[in-house]
Amino acid sequence: MVESRPEDAERLAGALAAGDRRALARAITLLESTRAEDRAQAERLVGALMAKAGGAIRLGISGSPGVGKSSFIEAFGLRLLEKGHRVAVLAVDPSSELSRGSILGDKTRMPELARNPGAYIRPSPTGGALGGVARRTREAVIAVEAAGYDVVLVETVGVGQSETDVADLTDMFLLLLAPGGGDELQGLKKGIVELAHALIVTKADGDLKPAAERAAADYKGALGILGPGAPGQSRGGAWRPQVLLCSAHERTGLDKIWQTVEAYRGTLGEAGLRDRRARQAKRWMWREIEDGLMAAFKSDPAVAERARALEADVGQGKTSPAAAAAELMQRFRGSRA
Amino acid sequence: MVESRPEDAERLAGALAAGDRRALARAITLLESTRAEDRAQAERLVGALMAKAGGAIRLGISGSPGVGKSSFIEAFGLRLLEKGHRVAVLAVDPSSELSRGSILGDKTRMPELARNPGAYIRPSPTGGALGGVARRTREAVIAVEAAGYDVVLVETVGVGQSETDVADLTDMFLLLLAPGGGDELQGLKKGIVELAHALIVTKADGDLKPAAERAAADYKGALGILGPGAPGQSRGGAWRPQVLLCSAHERTGLDKIWQTVEAYRGTLGEAGLRDRRARQAKRWMWREIEDGLMAAFKSDPAVAERARALEADVGQGKTSPAAAAAELMQRFRGSRA
Repeated sequence: MVESRPEDAERLAGALAAGDRRALARAITLLESTRAEDRAQAERLVGALMAKAGGAIRLGISGSPGVGKSSFIEAFGLRLLEKGHRVAVLAVDPSSELSRGSILGDKTRMPELARNPGAYIRPSPTGGALGGVARRTREAVIAVEAAGYDVVLVETVGVGQSETDVADLTDMFLLLLAPGGGDELQGLKKGIVELAHALIVTKADGDLKPAAERAAADYKGALGILGPGAPGQSRGGAWRPQVLLCSAHERTGLDKIWQTVEAYRGTLGEAGLRDRRARQAKRWMWREIEDGLMAAFKSDPAVAERARALEADVGQGKTSPAAAAAELMQRFRGSRA
Repeated sequence: MVESRPEDAERLAGALAAGDRRALARAITLLESTRAEDRAQAERLVGALMAKAGGAIRLGISGSPGVGKSSFIEAFGLRLLEKGHRVAVLAVDPSSELSRGSILGDKTRMPELARNPGAYIRPSPTGGALGGVARRTREAVIAVEAAGYDVVLVETVGVGQSETDVADLTDMFLLLLAPGGGDELQGLKKGIVELAHALIVTKADGDLKPAAERAAADYKGALGILGPGAPGQSRGGAWRPQVLLCSAHERTGLDKIWQTVEAYRGTLGEAGLRDRRARQAKRWMWREIEDGLMAAFKSDPAVAERARALEADVGQGKTSPAAAAAELMQRFRGSRA
């Protein structure tokens, strides 16, 4: 691809900050590149962009397929544009590493938003290395912020640990839920609810409106029973998660959602936001290291040769996990000495 | 201590399997040792014990302080002894690495069980290295199984990620909950509920009985709303978590709990149990490796010298997580080359 040829990181950063949309696209393509030779260049670019970044509110958005994520992002994004914001939409979709991904045709599924010059929609990166998708999205956030977008929506399809990743690279996490049909309440995916600062029941219009309202009341009840998060969890201290209703079709509930975003940001405060982001950045550093070390370990020929057999032995109870680990680490050290 | 002198692993394993309680105590002390020179001996011991292990049902037991864990384990353990089982009680208490621990005086808080020759109570190990407490408990499970105990209760105080650890080294995870006082329902600690195969409301006697019954009904409702676990979670596929009541004081509900354990084991089946344990063992192998690599990384002088400053830079947004990670990994490689 044209964008992956060597390019001056500082010049690219400058063009991007001056509002050049093609420079932004080239920059994100460089950040998404899985080619080892592009990585040093990508890191210089991030370095040049960081001073200009950080000014947006970063919102994570998740929800099961069919909940109406695209319609919500389209309606919410357009409302924010009307309010004078500039909106960027990014996506974390680990399934795109395997197939063509679940988030397809981002521009066609949010047609109005995609046409609006105040919005920037980036399709989810495809293909990639260990831990790569979340890192690249994290860096894309830096790029769109440096380009002046002040609301960044990071969408996830909820595969694997993508929700945890998105919660860990955004300021606030919104979980979309469909109104339960009939008496059945849609199951809340445990472990995800704890990440959410707001639950948003979608499709609160027409025939589904009563069901959506009942669902919202039930979710409120369930949140009450769940109680406050355990210490050390990602959700902010003083904030109590809210349950909200919206209709993308009738464009209702959107202002209330934005007010909730602002209320959350107010509760967090400047120092709280800085703290949250600092903790996130440090976790990403250690995660990069962990991923890097494990990748080096697993790709070490002396290790790879033996790991499969030892893992099978461990599974069958022939070797203890500790003994197998010790043998593999011995091999790893030996091959580097 | 006397137990840490070199000892023949095979002889110790033989004495332990023959029912020598002092050999069992010496074996666990060896497994718990944090002295590097004891580790090879400990691994030989585990190797010798593994063929004799695996015959017990392993139950994880968690619950907040004050919920009545000790009373429950005492009452439940005594009931199992009456049924002809042999019961071992182990504990995972990461707080004991810092202080003298929250699980203190195990023998005095379960006095009847401690006196019974059919039971074996091991106080939680104190002090230790990274990831150590859970590993040592995992190996202690092997030891008590080889010694013929057929029900192993692994207790956790619920500090840090000890609950996840305990769920990952047992076959079934029981979460104890106190009856909510008055109208207030005790908050369920999210992320833990998803691990539980059964929620047990304690103290269902006397004045608290109605509150316990109400709490059980409410928890049942909350579990219904939470829906089935996400794919890939630790809880077994076909099993629906149960909500049960018990009174340690009046010794009621204990048989029902044991029936639930047997029903769960039946649902899991022999192949399901073998699969669960095989997956657990493989995860422990990779976790040992991850912990070992990170420990080697963090204790590398070239890394340690620079890591603190870089972490601060990352927190302040002066350096990107990826760039900092790359620099530290470069140093790590350099110091090993």
